[in-house]
Amino acid sequence: MILDGKLVSRKILESVKKNVEELGIQPHLAVILVGDDAASKIYVKNKKKAAEKVGIKSTIIELSETISEAELLRQIELLNNNKDVTGILVQLPLPRHIDKNKVVMAISPKKDVDGFTPENVGRLAIGLEPYFYPATPQGIIMLLDEYNIPIQGTDAVILGRSNIVGKPMAQMLLRRNATVTMCHSYTRDLEDKIKTADILISAVGKKIVRCKMVKKNSCIVDVGIFRDSNGKLTGDVDFDYVSDSAGFISPVPGGVGPMTIASLMFNASKVYE
Amino acid sequence: MILDGKLVSRKILESVKKNVEELGIQPHLAVILVGDDAASKIYVKNKKKAAEKVGIKSTIIELSETISEAELLRQIELLNNNKDVTGILVQLPLPRHIDKNKVVMAISPKKDVDGFTPENVGRLAIGLEPYFYPATPQGIIMLLDEYNIPIQGTDAVILGRSNIVGKPMAQMLLRRNATVTMCHSYTRDLEDKIKTADILISAVGKKIVRCKMVKKNSCIVDVGIFRDSNGKLTGDVDFDYVSDSAGFISPVPGGVGPMTIASLMFNASKVYE
Repeated sequence: MILDGKLVSRKILESVKKNVEELGIQPHLAVILVGDDAASKIYVKNKKKAAEKVGIKSTIIELSETISEAELLRQIELLNNNKDVTGILVQLPLPRHIDKNKVVMAISPKKDVDGFTPENVGRLAIGLEPYFYPATPQGIIMLLDEYNIPIQGTDAVILGRSNIVGKPMAQMLLRRNATVTMCHSYTRDLEDKIKTADILISAVGKKIVRCKMVKKNSCIVDVGIFRDSNGKLTGDVDFDYVSDSAGFISPVPGGVGPMTIASLMFNASKVYE
Repeated sequence: MILDGKLVSRKILESVKKNVEELGIQPHLAVILVGDDAASKIYVKNKKKAAEKVGIKSTIIELSETISEAELLRQIELLNNNKDVTGILVQLPLPRHIDKNKVVMAISPKKDVDGFTPENVGRLAIGLEPYFYPATPQGIIMLLDEYNIPIQGTDAVILGRSNIVGKPMAQMLLRRNATVTMCHSYTRDLEDKIKTADILISAVGKKIVRCKMVKKNSCIVDVGIFRDSNGKLTGDVDFDYVSDSAGFISPVPGGVGPMTIASLMFNASKVYE
């Protein structure tokens, strides 16, 4: 059974659009893009397009590769204080001379649509409602819920411990009463751990889930997306190998990718300040 | 092999004392105690005694059970702004009419010696240095390190997911490159999970680790402390059952308890503001 992220994301975007119409005030997402990274430009354009579709105003603030950290922080401060802007997003990666953490921490938690600030991460960790949940794990939970995949009491295994996916995913699955195991590059006997997973979330960025032995009827969520040696878009999971055993599997492309965008738009439609 | 928390805590308190002497400014811990809970009074008294021993000034602020939430928040605000106070600790539990989370969130992260504020929890989670690590998991790491117990690459299993022990413990072990599994009341086949642990941290508060089958040469850290039916202090782990298999085990009492106090004093000796 395919977890169809394209289909589900459309449904979510429609409901976000309806919510925006009923808000009475138009949300306004400011997207900061530093430098000329081609991939970043595409991501930012896609976010703008998605925002327009659901009635969210968006402004792309293009800044030079050579901008100083202090000047970038000043720009964020201006956006924090701008009552017309309801959400702020800094497209990563940033140039090397800029401290990413400092920049993320400068964003007001109430406008932090990515959910990356310590305040929002901390609220998530201690069981309080954050202003925003990180888009990718939130999108994955939405996808699982749409297919009524049980989470409570299951054994969930997460491959990869990034701040963007792995770590917040662990917190969100734990909140839903899964038993959560976090794996990473230092993990021993990875295959044994993969085999125990009722829910497997792979967010590594290389073809890591190859074995036939994923658990029978398990749910496999593939967050990885990259091009293989033939230039074809692919994910962490060897789809053909595991699709016999798995009960549910998210494809790449068309799985987590569109869910992340929909989830981000869900965030961008919230207005706190 | 016994993880002797009494012995190691003494060593840590000595080094904290030396650090305090060299600081040039005396740290000042303010402890807020609301109401007349007998256990809380003992805890607070013990913290004051420990502080005195290492040269940290401490003030206990005793407030009435009937204090309003607003008034308690005002007291914390005063302490936040008081340049003479370098650390603030609110003894839990608080009376039911007060929102614990609101109170914890009111403490300045730079004086939050318990490491419970969202800012400190969030910094820990995203891999930044928090101003303070939560005392119990920090104390446990100190204990493991003192006995040169390897953490990187091990399978760590945590029983219990409190904000005070289980969840920050997971973050701290993950930082040290352990593969971490978080178990709790919804976990299925708990015994199977316990058996996989190279490092087992039990923070449940009842006699849960009974099986003979902890992993050979594993390290068992018992955070639970309560009185059994005979009124004797005991922990989560059936010491006699597991001590044959385990390589290291922390006793109750005399294991994690004194390490927590030492770790708290380590925190209270830090001066940020």
